[in-house]
Amino acid sequence: MNQPLFQPSRRSDVAPFIAMDVLAEAARLEAQGRKIIHMEVGQPSASAPKAALDMARKALDHGRLGYTEALGIRPLRAALAAHYRTTYGVDVPVERIVATTGSSAGFNLAFLAAFDPGDRIVLTAPGYPAYRNILKALGLVAVEIEVGEETRWSLTPAHLEEAQKEGPVKGVLVASPANPTGTMMTADALEDLIRYCDEAGIWFISDEIYHGLCYDGEEKTALETSQNVIIVNSFSKYYCMTGWRIGWMVLPEAMIRRAEILQQNLFISAPTLSQIAASVALGERDYAEEQKARYAHNRHLLGQGLRELGFELPRDGDGAFYAYAGIGQFSNDAMDFCLTMLDQAGVAATPGIDFDRTNGNGFVRFSYAGKSETVENALERMRDFLRAGG
Amino acid sequence: MNQPLFQPSRRSDVAPFIAMDVLAEAARLEAQGRKIIHMEVGQPSASAPKAALDMARKALDHGRLGYTEALGIRPLRAALAAHYRTTYGVDVPVERIVATTGSSAGFNLAFLAAFDPGDRIVLTAPGYPAYRNILKALGLVAVEIEVGEETRWSLTPAHLEEAQKEGPVKGVLVASPANPTGTMMTADALEDLIRYCDEAGIWFISDEIYHGLCYDGEEKTALETSQNVIIVNSFSKYYCMTGWRIGWMVLPEAMIRRAEILQQNLFISAPTLSQIAASVALGERDYAEEQKARYAHNRHLLGQGLRELGFELPRDGDGAFYAYAGIGQFSNDAMDFCLTMLDQAGVAATPGIDFDRTNGNGFVRFSYAGKSETVENALERMRDFLRAGG
Repeated sequence: MNQPLFQPSRRSDVAPFIAMDVLAEAARLEAQGRKIIHMEVGQPSASAPKAALDMARKALDHGRLGYTEALGIRPLRAALAAHYRTTYGVDVPVERIVATTGSSAGFNLAFLAAFDPGDRIVLTAPGYPAYRNILKALGLVAVEIEVGEETRWSLTPAHLEEAQKEGPVKGVLVASPANPTGTMMTADALEDLIRYCDEAGIWFISDEIYHGLCYDGEEKTALETSQNVIIVNSFSKYYCMTGWRIGWMVLPEAMIRRAEILQQNLFISAPTLSQIAASVALGERDYAEEQKARYAHNRHLLGQGLRELGFELPRDGDGAFYAYAGIGQFSNDAMDFCLTMLDQAGVAATPGIDFDRTNGNGFVRFSYAGKSETVENALERMRDFLRAGG
Repeated sequence: MNQPLFQPSRRSDVAPFIAMDVLAEAARLEAQGRKIIHMEVGQPSASAPKAALDMARKALDHGRLGYTEALGIRPLRAALAAHYRTTYGVDVPVERIVATTGSSAGFNLAFLAAFDPGDRIVLTAPGYPAYRNILKALGLVAVEIEVGEETRWSLTPAHLEEAQKEGPVKGVLVASPANPTGTMMTADALEDLIRYCDEAGIWFISDEIYHGLCYDGEEKTALETSQNVIIVNSFSKYYCMTGWRIGWMVLPEAMIRRAEILQQNLFISAPTLSQIAASVALGERDYAEEQKARYAHNRHLLGQGLRELGFELPRDGDGAFYAYAGIGQFSNDAMDFCLTMLDQAGVAATPGIDFDRTNGNGFVRFSYAGKSETVENALERMRDFLRAGG
C-alpha cells in the first residue's frame, strides 16, 4: 500500500556501465558450467607485480591494516612524486598527490571538487561510459562531442569553441590513450587543447590511466603543459591491479584541501593493503613492460583477425588494449550482437552503445589484455559464430 | 592571471571530518618522532581475524585479483544472507545484498539512489559527521535534530513530526549503537520509528556498523520491522577490518538495480581481496567476541577514569567503542582542547564539534577500541596534562 512511496531517486536513473552488465551475464553463464572468453572488461589477465604481492603478504603478516591518512600513505605519495620526475621529468610536490580507491574514486572527487550542479563538462563520444554516468548522478551535464576515425577520435579547441556557443563549459575530460578507441592525441594536439582550457578557465581533467600502454606516439602528462589540470590515474591497467582498487590524483594547489575533505567524508581512505602494495608496484616497470609486449602482440593478432572476419577496423589503436571495431557487416544492434555472441560463441565483448549512445550500435569493443591464446580462441569461436550466421 | 578562474566548486565547501584531520596531525607529530596515543579514530587495534588473513594470503598466491561483479562476489553475499538468518532470524535473499567499499560507499550509494537534490534527510546531532558532509556534497539537506542525554540521544516519531512541519522529510538516518555516544535505541523505540517512516513513506537508513558491539540492550536489525529500509553495514568495526574498506548494504527490491548501476559507474566493484577475506570473516565471531570483551573492559576503565579526571559522562555508552565526554570543567572550545592535548600530552581524541556543530564544543570523543594499556596510558597522560592546567 505504501510501496509507491518508496521509489528510487530521479538522479539515479543513469545508464548502466554495460561492460559490467556483460560481465555479470558472463558470470551467470559460467555458474552454469559454460566456458566464457572474457574480452568485455578492460583488465589484464596477469596478476599484480610479484614485488607488490610480496609486499602485501608482508603487510598481512605485520598486523593491523587500519585507516590511513585521507590523502594516502607517504611512501606511496613519495613514490608517485618520484615517478613523475623519472617518467616525465616533471616535479610534483608530494602534497599535490592523493591516493584514491581506483580512478573511479578519483573521478568522483574531481567532479565534486570542481563542479557545481548544472555545470557543463565536455566529453568525447565514444568515451568511457562511467564519465557521463557519474556526471549525471552528480547533477552535472555531460556535453558529448561525437568524434570519429576521421579526426583520430580526438577533441580540438574548435570543438570547445562550438560547445561554448550553447553555454559555458566548465570542464573537459580527455583520456589519451583513449577508451574504447586506444587513440593517442599527438603531443601538439594535447598541448593545444590544454592551453585553450588554461586560457578559458576550463578545468582540464586528464585521465591518464592508459599511460605506459602506448605502442605508437609520444606519451605526455598534462602536467607538462599546465599546473591547473587535474590528473586521474590508476594502478589498474599498466600495473595489472584492477581488483585492488587503487589509483591516484594530482591536483592543483587550490583543490588539495577540498579533495582531502571530500575523501575524509566520502571514502575515509583508499584500501590500505592496496596502498602498501602499490608503493612498490611503481618500481616494477620491467614486469609491466613484459605485459605490454604481450598486448602489442595481441593488438596485431586481434586487429588482423577482426579485419579478416569482416569487422571494420581501419587501424589498430595507438595505446590501451582495446579494439573498437565496426560491425556494420553483421548487425546494426551492438547489444543484440554481443548478447548473441556471448550466448552462442561464449565470447564476451562490450557493445559500442556503452561508449557512444549515438553511433555506438555500429561498434563492439574487444579488450586484448588477456593471453594471446585467448585472443586466438576468441577469433576461432567468432569465426564459427559468424559463419553460422551471427 | 587566469588563476582566479580555477576555483573549487561551492558544493565541495563541506566541513572536514575532524577525526581524520586529528589523525593527520598525529601522523605529522609521529613523523617527528613523537609517541602518540590514538583515541581519535574509531578503529580496533586488533588485526582482521586469522581466517580472513589466511584467505587473503591464499588469494594472493592464487593469481589475478580482477574486478568482481558490481554487486560483489557470490560467496560473500551468500555468507551475509546466512548471517542474517543465524544472527537475527531474518531471511534476506542474496539478490538484495550488495558488497560495498566500506560503509562509506554504502552511504554514497544509498543517498544517490534514494534522494534527489534538495531532499531533506533527518539526522541526530551528535552523529557521525560524514553523514551530513556527504549529504551536503550531494546537494541534499541534512536536518539535524539535537538530542541529548535526557532523551538517550535518540530520535522519536515526535521529532519527525516536528521536522515535517518545516518541509517534507525524505529520509531518516539512524545508527544504533550510535556514534559518538554509543547509545542503543530500545527495540520498541527503534520499531516505532521505523513503523512511522514506513507509513509516512520516509526512507529509513539504518547504519548497523556497530552491531555486534553491544554491552547493554538488545540488538535488532531494521529488517525485522520493514522491508523498505536500507541497511548499511561494514566489516570495519566488529570484524576489525577498517583499512580493508569492505562493507555491505541490504536494499529493498526497487533499489537493487539502481544501486548496481551506480556501483558499476561510481566504484566498479569493492576491493576484491577484501571481498574474499570478508567472506570468511563472518564465521570468526569467536575472535570478534574476544575483541569485544576487551572493549567491555576498556569501556569501564575509560568511563571510570574520565569521570575521576572531571569529565562529564553520566553513563557509559550501551555499545560501539566510544566515550562522548563533557569537558565543561576544562574548556568551552573542544577543538582547542583536543589540539592542545594532542600536542602536550600526545593523546589524540576528536572534538565534539565534529559530531555536533551546536553543542559539540562541550564534548570530546574518545575511542576505546585500543589495548587496555593504551587506555591506561592515555588516562595517565591526561591526568598530568590536566593537572598542569590543560
